[in-house]
Amino acid sequence: MRILHTSDWHLGRIFHQFSLIDEQRHALLQIIEAIEVHKPEVVIIAGDIYDRSIPPASAIGLFNEFVDQCIGTLKVPIIAISGNHDGAERLGFAANQLKHSGLHLVTSLDQMQKPITLADEYGDVDFWAVPFHDPAQVADFTGSPQTDFNQAHCSLIEQLPINKKYRNVMISHCYLDGANESESERPLTIGGADRVDWKIFKPFCYTALGHLHQPQYKGQESIRYSGSLLKYSFSEQHHNKSFTMVDIGPDGSNKITLLPLKQRRDLRVIRGTLEELVNAAKDDVNHEDFIQAVLTDSQALLNPMARLREHYPNILELKKERFETRTGQDYARSSEQLKRTDLDIFNDFFEQVHEQKLTEQQTKLLQKTLAAINEQESSS
Amino acid sequence: MRILHTSDWHLGRIFHQFSLIDEQRHALLQIIEAIEVHKPEVVIIAGDIYDRSIPPASAIGLFNEFVDQCIGTLKVPIIAISGNHDGAERLGFAANQLKHSGLHLVTSLDQMQKPITLADEYGDVDFWAVPFHDPAQVADFTGSPQTDFNQAHCSLIEQLPINKKYRNVMISHCYLDGANESESERPLTIGGADRVDWKIFKPFCYTALGHLHQPQYKGQESIRYSGSLLKYSFSEQHHNKSFTMVDIGPDGSNKITLLPLKQRRDLRVIRGTLEELVNAAKDDVNHEDFIQAVLTDSQALLNPMARLREHYPNILELKKERFETRTGQDYARSSEQLKRTDLDIFNDFFEQVHEQKLTEQQTKLLQKTLAAINEQESSS
Repeated sequence: MRILHTSDWHLGRIFHQFSLIDEQRHALLQIIEAIEVHKPEVVIIAGDIYDRSIPPASAIGLFNEFVDQCIGTLKVPIIAISGNHDGAERLGFAANQLKHSGLHLVTSLDQMQKPITLADEYGDVDFWAVPFHDPAQVADFTGSPQTDFNQAHCSLIEQLPINKKYRNVMISHCYLDGANESESERPLTIGGADRVDWKIFKPFCYTALGHLHQPQYKGQESIRYSGSLLKYSFSEQHHNKSFTMVDIGPDGSNKITLLPLKQRRDLRVIRGTLEELVNAAKDDVNHEDFIQAVLTDSQALLNPMARLREHYPNILELKKERFETRTGQDYARSSEQLKRTDLDIFNDFFEQVHEQKLTEQQTKLLQKTLAAINEQESSS
Repeated sequence: MRILHTSDWHLGRIFHQFSLIDEQRHALLQIIEAIEVHKPEVVIIAGDIYDRSIPPASAIGLFNEFVDQCIGTLKVPIIAISGNHDGAERLGFAANQLKHSGLHLVTSLDQMQKPITLADEYGDVDFWAVPFHDPAQVADFTGSPQTDFNQAHCSLIEQLPINKKYRNVMISHCYLDGANESESERPLTIGGADRVDWKIFKPFCYTALGHLHQPQYKGQESIRYSGSLLKYSFSEQHHNKSFTMVDIGPDGSNKITLLPLKQRRDLRVIRGTLEELVNAAKDDVNHEDFIQAVLTDSQALLNPMARLREHYPNILELKKERFETRTGQDYARSSEQLKRTDLDIFNDFFEQVHEQKLTEQQTKLLQKTLAAINEQESSS
C-alpha cells in the first residue's frame, strides 16, 4: 500500500499582507506530479487544509482544483481531516456524499468511529482519521471528563474498534511532546497541556501527523509529521519542506521516502548594512525571494524599506538590529547612538540624500540655525 | 417525471436580529415529508440556498442535513443552482465529485453547457440549470457585449445545445418582467435593467424559477416561481408560501400542484392602540408569531415595546403611525401633537404609570414647578 502523506497547507494564508495563493498552487502542482509519477493508492492530508475557518473563495477554488485533478483525473482517493485552523462544519459539507467519490472528509468525532478501508494485493488497510478536537469536545463525545489533550487523545484511540488482523494507519492533527515547533503554528492551548505522548501511536503501522510545520518523526520513524506545504514564517528559512511517500508492506513494515517541495519563491533572512544589502542584490539571482532584512547600520537611515524594495521587490519585513537587541556591546552602541547630536543626525541624512558630506560652510550655517532654534525653544 | 421545485431558502437569514434557522429547519422537514409521500424523481432548488455568500456554519449544517435526508436516505437527486445571494465558488466546491452522488450543484456558466439528464419510463428529460449571472459575466463568457439581463439571458439560452427530441426543463434565477416582487428580495441592479422577458422560456416544458419570493407564474402556467421557504418581510404577511410539484407527461405537458408550507411561527402586522393590542393578546392563541405592531395612539407612550413584548414575546418591530404618515388629517393631528404643552405630556406619562389622572392639587403643584423651571431656564 503506497501512501502520500501531506499536511498543513494553510490555503488562503496571508503573509505580511501578501497572498501566498500562487506559491500554494505551485507546491500543489508538485504533489499532483508526484501522484502521476509514483501512483500512490491514497493521499492523506493531515489537517489545516485552510488557514482559517472561513477561507477566501480563492482558497476553496484551489482545493477544488486539487480534488478534481487527484480524484477526477488521476483516480486517487483522498483522506483529509480537519485541523485546528479549519472550520470543521464548513469543510465537512456533504461528506457523506463525497466519500462515494473517493473524497473522505473526516471532520467530526462521530465519523472517526468507522475506519476507511482500502485494499491492496495483501489485504485490507484500515485508516483511522482523527479530526482535530480539544479535550472539551472529547469530554462531550465520550461522556467522561478529559483533563488535557493527551488524555483526550488516549480516550479516543482506546475506544476505537481496531481489528489487529488488518494493517492499521492513524491520521491525526496534534502536538507530540518533544517535537520541534515553528513560529507559524497557532498554539492549541496555553501552558503545554496540548502535548500528546507519541507512545499512544505505537500500535499503528504508520501515523500520519499534522500540526507541526517541520518534517520530522518522534519516537519511531513511522510516527511522522509531513511538515507544511510552504515556509510560513522566517523562522522556517532553513527547513527543507517535503511530503512523505510511505510504502506499507504485507507485514505492516514501512519504507519512507521524503519528496522535496520546491518553493516558488524562497523565504529567507538577509543581514548587513543597507549598502551591503543593496550591493549584494546585484549578483543575487534569487532577489525575488520573500525577504526579511536585518539592518546593522548604526546611523539613521532615510526610508530604507523603499531602497531595499528597488532591489528586492518581495521584501516583506525590515528589522533594525540596533533597536532590536540591546545587550552588552550592542547596548553600549545604542547608548552612544542616543548621545548623537542633531548635527550628527542631520549629517547622516544629508549624506544619504546627496551622497556627499556637508561642506565646512554648510556645517557652520547649520550650527548657527540649530543654535537659533534651540534658543527660541528655551525662551518660549 | 415528477419534480419538486423549491427556491429562495435563504438559510442563515437574520431577521430583525433574530435567527430564523429553527423556522427554516421546520419548513425543510415539510419538504422532506413531501418527498417521502409524493416520491418525486428529482428536487430542484432554483437558487438562494443561503442568504449570503459566506453563510454561518449553522446554515451549512442545515443544508447538509437536508442533503443527507434527501439523497442519502430517500435516494432522490437534487439539482441546485446558485442565486444572487449565494457565493458561487463556495457553494460549488467539489461539484464534480458530488454529481456522482446525485447532488448536482451548478454554479458556473461552464457547467450549464451540458444538461443533467434523468430518465423516466417515457425517455429522457434534459434539465438545463442556469446559475445566477450578471451581464458582465455573460459578456466575459460569450465574448460579446451584453447590455442588460434580458439580452444576457437570451444569449445564454440561444447557445445551449438543446435536443428537441427530449423533454427539456429550464432552471433559472432571474427577475421576470411584470412579475410581483416583495420587500425581501435584493435588487439585482438599479433601474429595471434586471428584467427578463418570460417569452424566452416558451420552448421548455417547465421553467423552475427562483428570485421572487411570492409563488406565481408569468406568461404561462409552466413558467413559475415556487416562492421562498418562509415569509422574509412583513410585506409578505398575506403570502401563502408553498413549493411546487410538477408532473411532466410523455408529451411534455404538465400538471402543477402547490404544496403549502406551514410557517412554524407566522409573521404578521397588528394595528391599534397599545391598550387594544395588549387586550387582544389575551385571546390570541398565536401571540408567539413574529409581530410588527403599528400603534395608533396619539399621546406619548412609556416604553411600549417592553409592554407589548410581555404579551407578544416575538415582537420584532414597532411603528408609530402618527409619526410614520404625515399626510392630510394625519398631518393635522401631528401638528396638534407638536402644540401639546409639557403639562399635557406629563399628564400622559403619569396616567400610564399610575393608571389614574393627576388630581387638581397635583396639577397645580406641577404647573408651579414647570413655571419655576421655565423661569430659571430663561434667566440663565
